[in-house]
Amino acid sequence: MQNTLLHSINSPKDLRLLKPEQLPQLAQELREFIINIVAVKEGHLGASLGVIELTIALHYVFNTPDDQLIWDVGHQAYGHKILTERKAAFHTNRQLGGICGFPKRDESIYDTFGVGHSSTSISAALGMAIASKLKGETEKQHIAVIGDASIASGMAFEGLNHAGVTDANLLVILNDNAIGIDPSVGALKMYLTNVKKGTQKQDNIFEALNFDYSGPIDGHDFDAIISELERLKTVKGPKFLHIITTKGKGLRQAEEDQVRYHAPGKFDSETGELIPKSTSKIPKYQDVFGHTIVELAKQNKNIVGITPAMPTGSSLKYMMAQLPDRAFDVGIAEQHAVTLAAGMVTQGLIPFCNIYSTFLQRAYDQIIHDVAIQNLPVIFCLDRAGLVGEDGATHHGVYDLSYLRCIPNLIIFAPRNEMELRNIMYTAQLGLNHPIAIRYPRGRGITADWKQPFKAIKIGTGITLKEGDKIAILSIGTIAKNVTEAIDQSNNPESIAHYDLRFVKPLDERLLHNIFKNHKTLITIEDNSIKGGFGSAILEFAASNHYKNDIKVLGIPDAVIDHASVSELQQQIGLDAQHLSKLLNDILKT
Amino acid sequence: MQNTLLHSINSPKDLRLLKPEQLPQLAQELREFIINIVAVKEGHLGASLGVIELTIALHYVFNTPDDQLIWDVGHQAYGHKILTERKAAFHTNRQLGGICGFPKRDESIYDTFGVGHSSTSISAALGMAIASKLKGETEKQHIAVIGDASIASGMAFEGLNHAGVTDANLLVILNDNAIGIDPSVGALKMYLTNVKKGTQKQDNIFEALNFDYSGPIDGHDFDAIISELERLKTVKGPKFLHIITTKGKGLRQAEEDQVRYHAPGKFDSETGELIPKSTSKIPKYQDVFGHTIVELAKQNKNIVGITPAMPTGSSLKYMMAQLPDRAFDVGIAEQHAVTLAAGMVTQGLIPFCNIYSTFLQRAYDQIIHDVAIQNLPVIFCLDRAGLVGEDGATHHGVYDLSYLRCIPNLIIFAPRNEMELRNIMYTAQLGLNHPIAIRYPRGRGITADWKQPFKAIKIGTGITLKEGDKIAILSIGTIAKNVTEAIDQSNNPESIAHYDLRFVKPLDERLLHNIFKNHKTLITIEDNSIKGGFGSAILEFAASNHYKNDIKVLGIPDAVIDHASVSELQQQIGLDAQHLSKLLNDILKT
Repeated sequence: MQNTLLHSINSPKDLRLLKPEQLPQLAQELREFIINIVAVKEGHLGASLGVIELTIALHYVFNTPDDQLIWDVGHQAYGHKILTERKAAFHTNRQLGGICGFPKRDESIYDTFGVGHSSTSISAALGMAIASKLKGETEKQHIAVIGDASIASGMAFEGLNHAGVTDANLLVILNDNAIGIDPSVGALKMYLTNVKKGTQKQDNIFEALNFDYSGPIDGHDFDAIISELERLKTVKGPKFLHIITTKGKGLRQAEEDQVRYHAPGKFDSETGELIPKSTSKIPKYQDVFGHTIVELAKQNKNIVGITPAMPTGSSLKYMMAQLPDRAFDVGIAEQHAVTLAAGMVTQGLIPFCNIYSTFLQRAYDQIIHDVAIQNLPVIFCLDRAGLVGEDGATHHGVYDLSYLRCIPNLIIFAPRNEMELRNIMYTAQLGLNHPIAIRYPRGRGITADWKQPFKAIKIGTGITLKEGDKIAILSIGTIAKNVTEAIDQSNNPESIAHYDLRFVKPLDERLLHNIFKNHKTLITIEDNSIKGGFGSAILEFAASNHYKNDIKVLGIPDAVIDHASVSELQQQIGLDAQHLSKLLNDILKT
Repeated sequence: MQNTLLHSINSPKDLRLLKPEQLPQLAQELREFIINIVAVKEGHLGASLGVIELTIALHYVFNTPDDQLIWDVGHQAYGHKILTERKAAFHTNRQLGGICGFPKRDESIYDTFGVGHSSTSISAALGMAIASKLKGETEKQHIAVIGDASIASGMAFEGLNHAGVTDANLLVILNDNAIGIDPSVGALKMYLTNVKKGTQKQDNIFEALNFDYSGPIDGHDFDAIISELERLKTVKGPKFLHIITTKGKGLRQAEEDQVRYHAPGKFDSETGELIPKSTSKIPKYQDVFGHTIVELAKQNKNIVGITPAMPTGSSLKYMMAQLPDRAFDVGIAEQHAVTLAAGMVTQGLIPFCNIYSTFLQRAYDQIIHDVAIQNLPVIFCLDRAGLVGEDGATHHGVYDLSYLRCIPNLIIFAPRNEMELRNIMYTAQLGLNHPIAIRYPRGRGITADWKQPFKAIKIGTGITLKEGDKIAILSIGTIAKNVTEAIDQSNNPESIAHYDLRFVKPLDERLLHNIFKNHKTLITIEDNSIKGGFGSAILEFAASNHYKNDIKVLGIPDAVIDHASVSELQQQIGLDAQHLSKLLNDILKT
């Protein structure tokens, strides 16, 4: 089909010139536009395809950007971006210098609130709605679109609980497709399913929370959505619209395999078939985790696995398939996940609680209050630590070493490679008498032959990777690879030593005394903020021990880091091998 | 009345020897025992008085400690402590070396899970219940007792949502007294009120979440509670019992003024009358905040105030009384509070979001993701930062400087005195283009004449409190008082300089260059962890600028700090004036 309608639409103003009967055609064109570009440029697919009708209807009925529209998480906002002045830029999605994969305030006045993590939309929209009320803007609409996985997270409940006792002009739209990235779980999901089937009374949870509830309606039926949105425009106070959609709608494979087509990589836009990625023998760290926990759990019956809604992303799915009674997807509920693990430990279980570094921020209090203060040996696996690349500012896991380091009783470890990850997992389940946080990055490691026999790691010990008399580089985690390359490329590799400290806490003080005594200049390097992280730990050690060496702290600068590939970002901030070798040469000259 | 029954009871085993008809007398004796001791020793009163019958019934019916009983928050657990081998120790409650004000695992096998912050009990109990199931302990009971304020927090919802789809042997008891520390708020509270009044159908929220629901029943009626608990023992899977109690039950004044008698201080155990505290002209920092926000809000119509369930504790109650449309108690919902504030900022409001330092841990992700990444100028007021004293390990606000310092765009300030707190609040509402965190301690300041005209503070500037050529002390916040005393008590006050940096971020680099150039030895001091806090910021500055001065970092050691008065704790960790002056003398000798 010719792109005849979409061609003429750059903003919602253009959209509002269409007749209602033209909207289905626009929906089809918009789907094709997204499919054609995502097929080549990659990105998130299924979520946006599922809300095409809703997206069009919202901008058609409401007076955006004056009316405030917030997309929860934002994976589903591609259609929104294209209809709001970013059609021409859409092919730059998630690339260096291109538009962001999520709504972002800096990018457009239509992006009223930046998103990325789940379940923030109701609180933010309520804040806007209360502001409008205080300012006397009585006609202004405030709309939060939230999925059924996100609404089951505690923060969303807090927002609903407050909104229900206000007279704020808030519309919450539940986009119910029974799936987040993986299928939704939990009692609320079951309840929503019963509502859909008609086996649940209409006097429902949302009415109990004092919302004016309507639905469920078919989220792909323009007539139904538009007439209901028009009606809701005239209803004051907190309103709740339940719509049913199909994730991946309009692309058969995406409807049938919703997990894989959440972010399918490249595919054939005509047939929908995935284009196989170049096969690599180098594993993802995720799979090292996923296979190793199964291997360990088969030997140790006390091991359990926990993921808050990321069985596929974390690869806990392997354990869920093989040991379903002992692997738990608790939904988007990081707080609960951590305290659940703490409760399990009190009864002798050994929980591996796998949470992305950026999402563990949601459970910070629980780590301190429920785990560390009680010194319960939960094993935290922090996936996607460091720079995550294309997901950008909201998802980089670059704060964890700083926010974890001040917590008493906690051991903090970062593996340099696959074997180190395996071995620390092995070591942790032997029993440490302390909680431990193991942080590792997104993506592939460096070792094809990674499945080697387990070896226990002595807590608080680092490794000498390379001797050298002038400069000592102290690295933590997988950034060691860049350091090794940089040393090789430098003018005098022999004079540069390289140590993998492995433990950010407790530090290997014996090794550190040696390093400080034998090298004038130290460089610390980490893929965490330079404020309060590994480098600061080394500075604290130096100050306590009256060492006066020169210490250069390298890491993530104290600024918001946007999206781009990890290697582009490393270049940008000077953590790639080339920048590092130049720095080494500069120091060698002095 | 003679303490005849309680006298013979040291553990639940003794309790179970009583006949049911003796329990009301025991309840009365237990109430009197608590009242008599708390009247003299201080502590939390109302919550425990409200659950006396429930406490007795639970230990009477269930086989504690094999059956696992968790008290959410734990303010209500005094009766539990007394019945579980701590009757003789109860007079040491919350004192140095005494028993903890909250349940604590180290203290007793009956304290199955340490608590303090709200809404953790369901997750922890579910973790235990799942563990029992995996271990084949089919008869074991797992009970979470949670109040109506706590159950409205997001984390509790996450626990319920997971529990509802398990077959774990979990009993959640909702202790519904319509009040936390302040009266409960929110839509769920309204809903519960309707259930109590019979105006809400019984097919309720908790049934919708797949719990076997019973109630509401009278929580002071032994026959009703015991027969229902006996019945529930035989029901498998997730169960929910709704009981209605009166906070402060049994002491007229405590029933009538539930907010004041939550933790009433000393009172007459016979009459219940409060014993007036020695009046002081020195204000609490809380009241400086509370009165100043009212003063500013009357001049600036965009100012709003937000508290998550602490209107009395934070003194936002003054604004709620005088400007009720612009001051919001959102319930125990720190996550929501922060993102609500962020949403308000996008519409031009100026929110002061007042959250205790220890509870802001619950909203860590929201500070990063919703506020700082978008650089929205929310004004955070972190009450009860530093050591909080008798509330102990779960409540000390000693991590905030570390966990906040790695966040881009955030300004961090700690006032040394009342005027600095007022002036930074004044400065912040003028518009900073950045979010700011203002941290101040619990309790009284140092200035009677504190209500002085506002002066703007230049961001990133410190203050020279005292010159001196040998040692420079760099302090942050109210610990400056101890430093001033220590210098006065030292052998050579003239040689010691004292700087109040005020801003942990951005640092006053101009002042720091002067300090580093003119003093051989620097001491940093803060009431925050020595890992990653203010001292580390100074070390980072020194390393970046190649300074080789001796730097000693003083602060909260990297360990769990228990309960005692603030001054006792400061002595324990060497932050009192006496220890500091000894340290200064030692350095002066070298």
